[in-house]
Amino acid sequence: MSYAAAFVDLDGTVWRGRSAIPAANAGLRALRDAAVPIVFLTNNTGVRRDEVTSRLDAIGIDYEGEPVVTAAWATAAYLAEHRPDADVHVMGQDTVEAEIEDAGLTLSTEGRADVVVAGYDDRVDFARLTGTLRAFGPGTVFVATNRDRTTPEEDGPVPGANAFVSAIEGMVDQEPVVVGKPETRMADLAAAEVGADVHNCLMIGDNLETDVLMGERAGMDTALVCSGVSAREDVAASEIEPTYVVDDLGDVASLL
Amino acid sequence: MSYAAAFVDLDGTVWRGRSAIPAANAGLRALRDAAVPIVFLTNNTGVRRDEVTSRLDAIGIDYEGEPVVTAAWATAAYLAEHRPDADVHVMGQDTVEAEIEDAGLTLSTEGRADVVVAGYDDRVDFARLTGTLRAFGPGTVFVATNRDRTTPEEDGPVPGANAFVSAIEGMVDQEPVVVGKPETRMADLAAAEVGADVHNCLMIGDNLETDVLMGERAGMDTALVCSGVSAREDVAASEIEPTYVVDDLGDVASLL
Repeated sequence: MSYAAAFVDLDGTVWRGRSAIPAANAGLRALRDAAVPIVFLTNNTGVRRDEVTSRLDAIGIDYEGEPVVTAAWATAAYLAEHRPDADVHVMGQDTVEAEIEDAGLTLSTEGRADVVVAGYDDRVDFARLTGTLRAFGPGTVFVATNRDRTTPEEDGPVPGANAFVSAIEGMVDQEPVVVGKPETRMADLAAAEVGADVHNCLMIGDNLETDVLMGERAGMDTALVCSGVSAREDVAASEIEPTYVVDDLGDVASLL
Repeated sequence: MSYAAAFVDLDGTVWRGRSAIPAANAGLRALRDAAVPIVFLTNNTGVRRDEVTSRLDAIGIDYEGEPVVTAAWATAAYLAEHRPDADVHVMGQDTVEAEIEDAGLTLSTEGRADVVVAGYDDRVDFARLTGTLRAFGPGTVFVATNRDRTTPEEDGPVPGANAFVSAIEGMVDQEPVVVGKPETRMADLAAAEVGADVHNCLMIGDNLETDVLMGERAGMDTALVCSGVSAREDVAASEIEPTYVVDDLGDVASLL
């Protein structure tokens, strides 16, 4: 089958921690040989887009200038489109603050804000939670970069963005607008980056509940790679049905 | 009407911050004159029961040795009954840890635990959240002291227990057993303290969503006092229906 573009997840698909996944270059080469444009797509909010590309270089992944969509950048793009004049309070990584400032919005550091953005926050403490609670007033919009429950690290899981998003939800009883996977906003942004119709694109990722579910919701074909979070037995137990299940990104060649 | 006992909330009902609510002594006296046993009942987890009684003394509230039920003590009592041999990981105040140790259970400081207890945690940080996440294994029981969304302080609201409980729920996708108001476990414990049938007791408190809802769920008559969180207009807008609405604890005399 021929695809208008492939959206390729990073963690668990292209790299794992600080190492390249061995078959990743073969898969990316197959996509390029088949003239399928690539967009890299990650729920990570701790890296800028140029840091993603330097990291690809550093670990030996061939990078040929393809667009990168991070949840931090996507959140800023979402706000620039929907709330360009907003004061934005961030409970998240400083990268998120930087993306929001780069998108032309104003950061709010004290008192009420028009928008509260929440995500993975390694600086969390009682004072930051209090400041975030007090940023809410009537009409404040609540936006989450993503809702990943946990983040895998080498010595075990650490809290994911959802710990912080849920903490806020638990205080203010207000559901956030979610930008990252499995919501489809990132798929739309990725499609726009390469001028493709999202329905003709293929989503490739290692996580059933983020990558594959987003693809399913966006009406895309999906390929689950079993080099990260989700395994073949998870597919059998899940209601989320990838179009393809392959061992790793290298096997994407057989789908083109 | 004659009641077998009255359960009296503290914050917003008897005291506010560090000050006695002026009519509180009159209300307590009316209950004692009518021979209605009193139990003080609070979702606060930051004080031991003897600290509650010293604080009553310190601010000039007449205290005559009545039982005090705090959410911290109630949580320890719940665990001592249901999981007496459990290793317990606490994400909450040190008072909660002290109550749990006093109830004969073992505190777990690292790795997996049989029970995770969560509540208001002014020491929250990324490492504490990570330790709590890693305390969960197959079969770990999740217990919340209470789910108050926020805590009123003089300069504004601060996070309530639900911020921390929801953060954990957001990581592990497991609902907690809740001990504090509005769940009915504290009503049962309070009734047991004075040997009364809970259905014949009166719940008096300032918060529709905790005090009055607990009373409603426990099948009790309820009196909302308008000296704290909830006002008369909140009653009109709510589906929770107190049996009585009065200005403050002093007006309880008219209900006896």
